[in-house]
Amino acid sequence: MNLPSVLTQPISPRSVVAETAARERLDSLVKPLGSLGRLEDIAAWLCGAQGRCPAVPIERVRVVVFAGDHGVADEGVSAYPREVTAAMVAAFLGGFAGVSVLAHSQGARVRVLDLGVRVDLPDAPADVRRYKVRHGSGDISRQDALTPAETLAGLEAGAAIADEEIDGGADLLVPGDMGIGNTTVAAALVAATLGLPADDVVGSGTGVSGLALVHKRAVIDLALSRRRADGPLGVLNALGSADAAATVGFLIRAAARSTPVLLDGVFSGACALVASRIAPAAADWWLAGHRSTEPSQRHALAALGLEPVVDVGMRLGEGSGAMVALPIVRAAQTLLAGMGTLQDLNLANADADTHSSGRM
Amino acid sequence: MNLPSVLTQPISPRSVVAETAARERLDSLVKPLGSLGRLEDIAAWLCGAQGRCPAVPIERVRVVVFAGDHGVADEGVSAYPREVTAAMVAAFLGGFAGVSVLAHSQGARVRVLDLGVRVDLPDAPADVRRYKVRHGSGDISRQDALTPAETLAGLEAGAAIADEEIDGGADLLVPGDMGIGNTTVAAALVAATLGLPADDVVGSGTGVSGLALVHKRAVIDLALSRRRADGPLGVLNALGSADAAATVGFLIRAAARSTPVLLDGVFSGACALVASRIAPAAADWWLAGHRSTEPSQRHALAALGLEPVVDVGMRLGEGSGAMVALPIVRAAQTLLAGMGTLQDLNLANADADTHSSGRM
Repeated sequence: MNLPSVLTQPISPRSVVAETAARERLDSLVKPLGSLGRLEDIAAWLCGAQGRCPAVPIERVRVVVFAGDHGVADEGVSAYPREVTAAMVAAFLGGFAGVSVLAHSQGARVRVLDLGVRVDLPDAPADVRRYKVRHGSGDISRQDALTPAETLAGLEAGAAIADEEIDGGADLLVPGDMGIGNTTVAAALVAATLGLPADDVVGSGTGVSGLALVHKRAVIDLALSRRRADGPLGVLNALGSADAAATVGFLIRAAARSTPVLLDGVFSGACALVASRIAPAAADWWLAGHRSTEPSQRHALAALGLEPVVDVGMRLGEGSGAMVALPIVRAAQTLLAGMGTLQDLNLANADADTHSSGRM
Repeated sequence: MNLPSVLTQPISPRSVVAETAARERLDSLVKPLGSLGRLEDIAAWLCGAQGRCPAVPIERVRVVVFAGDHGVADEGVSAYPREVTAAMVAAFLGGFAGVSVLAHSQGARVRVLDLGVRVDLPDAPADVRRYKVRHGSGDISRQDALTPAETLAGLEAGAAIADEEIDGGADLLVPGDMGIGNTTVAAALVAATLGLPADDVVGSGTGVSGLALVHKRAVIDLALSRRRADGPLGVLNALGSADAAATVGFLIRAAARSTPVLLDGVFSGACALVASRIAPAAADWWLAGHRSTEPSQRHALAALGLEPVVDVGMRLGEGSGAMVALPIVRAAQTLLAGMGTLQDLNLANADADTHSSGRM
């Protein structure tokens, strides 16, 4: 199985020049050295991604919600029936889902795409189904999620969607997700990629507890033992879904187009991990938005070397965690661009001891 | 020493009715139960503070920066000379300090007040000095920070400032701070209030390291052993400062006026701890904005039962950490007020298993 050519394009690193300039500028601002903590790293990252210092405000954020059903939902791994996936697509279209209201309040736009919902939503605009790969992905505990051709179609769809958004002017992309059963798929993708047992990736973080949790772990175990093919494409075939493949393609293409991405929670974390095994340089363009309560996200982000911006115990998905992190990314840009420098203070004899940085 | 009458007014609790309604509304929204994590607590807290559900948007945020010099800065406990305090007041007036640019970007206003700066700033509007208590507070390792009369004047000043801001329409107050040496004062206030040794409250989190950190610990030790008086007012006299006393008065008065407060970092945490020993019911009205890197803040917040909204390794002070947390407080309000309900989904047979909440 060969990758579509759109996913084998070279990926440039972020600008070292802009990032170095950001670090120098940060150290010149009216504050003790390093006192903005994580915001200094974020500001520098954004400068590197934009290739300029200071970075300009992030103004055209696009959230793309990749929706799809997962056959494994039939195994009873979720507290919700699979009909919820389609119903939630309607909620995104209606603008009343969690990510919708957060995005609206921050001037970001949300686009929902049906990659693999089991049914076709009769009332949805045709554009929502434009990249549809199949009706529901296979139950990973019993069969492959996708055929190789469907995996490629999903990857290509995600890349095409990234191109559309970037050509439309997006300056920050957020991958969102909707699909009953998708934390099971995310856990399986992470476990297979990192060689972890189901025990390490399943957790009460989903809200499933007691016997249902034991069952979910067994389902993941079954999926992992059934898998034959290796490599990221084999893992996607066997354990992924149409929406997962599209998210992977989206993430790789965003990096190839030098467009920064703010990851959401467990699903985008698992897809980012798989994407990094296809295109290792791509992770340079991804910032982790929030810490999900799902254990598989912790493993995925650790393997990627990413540390989330916020940790507020969210597990909604959709892109909502990234949208809670977005104002902090914006705050980092605002501080770097707007704060005065120590020279503005006009302090002739009040230089800080250069051997230690101190809180003022 | 008797408290000013303005600080002995009764303090009402937040509205249980509104908070209960918020919890019910949260459970009706299009999301798995509890899946917004910490944002659900914040949304409920805000409803309780506003006395209505859903809470209305926070629109008139006022940051008050209490500035003052601390005699203990002469002991070499900071990496910066004390001249920086006055210079930073000019930075607030000029709008180029960290908290200034964050507040501007979020439509919040910053007011800086000189409670105890060592010098009078010649170019500052007279209003900045309107509540000035003294020129620099005493070196707490050698003498009391304030006289009892000055402590009362500081408390009354803070209460009057809170009244002004609330009468001016503030719907959320943020106490900010500026004063070289003020983490030493904060550490001493927390240690004296909680009966902790200097070792527990001093840390490299300040940016001071090596011998300078050992010295800072010794200075705090000296201050703690010198103190005679007990009780929160005695602690403020001996170990506080004019700006600390004013912050304490501000926090108590805000609560008595049923106005929510978003605390900043180590200095407002220490003042909140002292304030809670004067008016235990006041803590009901305070939300902790961010986790400072200073260990004394951890002790203060634990004693208050408060958990910060964000933890991004900041140690700038000024109110800046609270301003990074503010968008998350606003996001909580936005979600509660704007999300649709499960009924909107029109899912006849798709109710979640009520025995467990599950991620969708």
